[in-house]
Amino acid sequence: MSENPTACILVIGNEVLSGRTQDANVKYIATRLAEIGISLREVRIIPDVHDTIVNTVNEMRASFDHVFTTGGIGPTHDDITSECIAAAFGVPWEPHPEAWERMERSYKPGEFNAARQRMATMPRGATLINNAISIAPGFSMGNVHVMAGVPRIMQAMFDTLAPTLRGGTPIQSRAVHTGGVPEGRIAEGLGAIQDRYPGLDIGSYPYYRPTGNGVAIVAKGTDIAAAEAAIAEVSALMIELGGTPVPGEPPV
Amino acid sequence: MSENPTACILVIGNEVLSGRTQDANVKYIATRLAEIGISLREVRIIPDVHDTIVNTVNEMRASFDHVFTTGGIGPTHDDITSECIAAAFGVPWEPHPEAWERMERSYKPGEFNAARQRMATMPRGATLINNAISIAPGFSMGNVHVMAGVPRIMQAMFDTLAPTLRGGTPIQSRAVHTGGVPEGRIAEGLGAIQDRYPGLDIGSYPYYRPTGNGVAIVAKGTDIAAAEAAIAEVSALMIELGGTPVPGEPPV
Repeated sequence: MSENPTACILVIGNEVLSGRTQDANVKYIATRLAEIGISLREVRIIPDVHDTIVNTVNEMRASFDHVFTTGGIGPTHDDITSECIAAAFGVPWEPHPEAWERMERSYKPGEFNAARQRMATMPRGATLINNAISIAPGFSMGNVHVMAGVPRIMQAMFDTLAPTLRGGTPIQSRAVHTGGVPEGRIAEGLGAIQDRYPGLDIGSYPYYRPTGNGVAIVAKGTDIAAAEAAIAEVSALMIELGGTPVPGEPPV
Repeated sequence: MSENPTACILVIGNEVLSGRTQDANVKYIATRLAEIGISLREVRIIPDVHDTIVNTVNEMRASFDHVFTTGGIGPTHDDITSECIAAAFGVPWEPHPEAWERMERSYKPGEFNAARQRMATMPRGATLINNAISIAPGFSMGNVHVMAGVPRIMQAMFDTLAPTLRGGTPIQSRAVHTGGVPEGRIAEGLGAIQDRYPGLDIGSYPYYRPTGNGVAIVAKGTDIAAAEAAIAEVSALMIELGGTPVPGEPPV
């Protein structure tokens, strides 16, 4: 659909697979990647299991231009992402001089213990991803960008990382919605519009809100003029079918 | 960790990868699977692309006891999950007599159009997953369970499906939290506790709340007595380190 660089996200953590934690990082990263013109193609959520992490990282870094990981870089026994990245790249997992020095300096004497030292231990060759919130950095290793799982720390790391990524053409969208035309009636005409705009991704999303039900149509792509033209055609179709199109997404 | 049946979730939809939509189905399914003793091992989020869906379904149905898919079974051009499941199984995609008859009956004459007929068209051999909300059913094909993307419809389908699934031993959890001991100080003792309870999955989750920051420790497994014993040891460790353990997860 576009020549933009590609990406995937790897969410690492038993807590998402167990249902304890609602992931909030995918939506943030996905939104930001679209803005800088990187095409997010896949997300995987996997457990804190060494071989699973190593094999998945190696599969994904060969398949996509960028791999973004979240989770598993804290000080406890279930934080094994960093050592798994080293294993995936076949390099030693060793103290990173800059991270080590900075973390050691931030703790009182005796408090930079073995568990915290793990957060300054990285694959050889890693580049730090600093952030404004946590003293412990993330890191990039080749095309793999390793970030925290806690959303506000992850976001701070992504903000540091984003300007360093080679992007493409931003992906923009236009939308229209109506309560007056069921999805099953607009579907045929909508398919014809999609066929006329092969460079766009046109999606149809029913909504159910206290203020009423309806369907939202969203056109996305790198060509914003095409998205606007397609949504104008969708609006005309809604009117033809007896509905009243309202520009944009429905209110939440 | 357990002999429970295994599962994966396949979230199908460009709208999650674009950042438009926050997935809400993984947490629901994950929680329910834990209750009925099915071990969720992986989640993938993929786009509405034919070959990607077919290949991913075939990979996952060979790797796990159950595959749960969400999304892509509506009436519009971007709803291609059902035909992709047929392609994955190498069977015809054809009208399902029971679904067809029921849907045809629910519409006024002339309104059961081609787009809506797609929702009654299924892989040969599919078993319907009815639901109380939408007239259009999901379906199971072998070990692949195909459900809607709209959360309340997906949940209604899962409720129909759940009693038919062979489960195992429910996965239960116990938790304790404290604001008094940083994760980096509890990590060493926590690792030793995990080593003593290899059948449990003990996780450490820092939290940041308006009411205060701290760390929550959660022990999960099929042996609830072991989880209680492990959490008692964690509580003792928190006290030893000068903290005040509070049973359960921190308030939201």
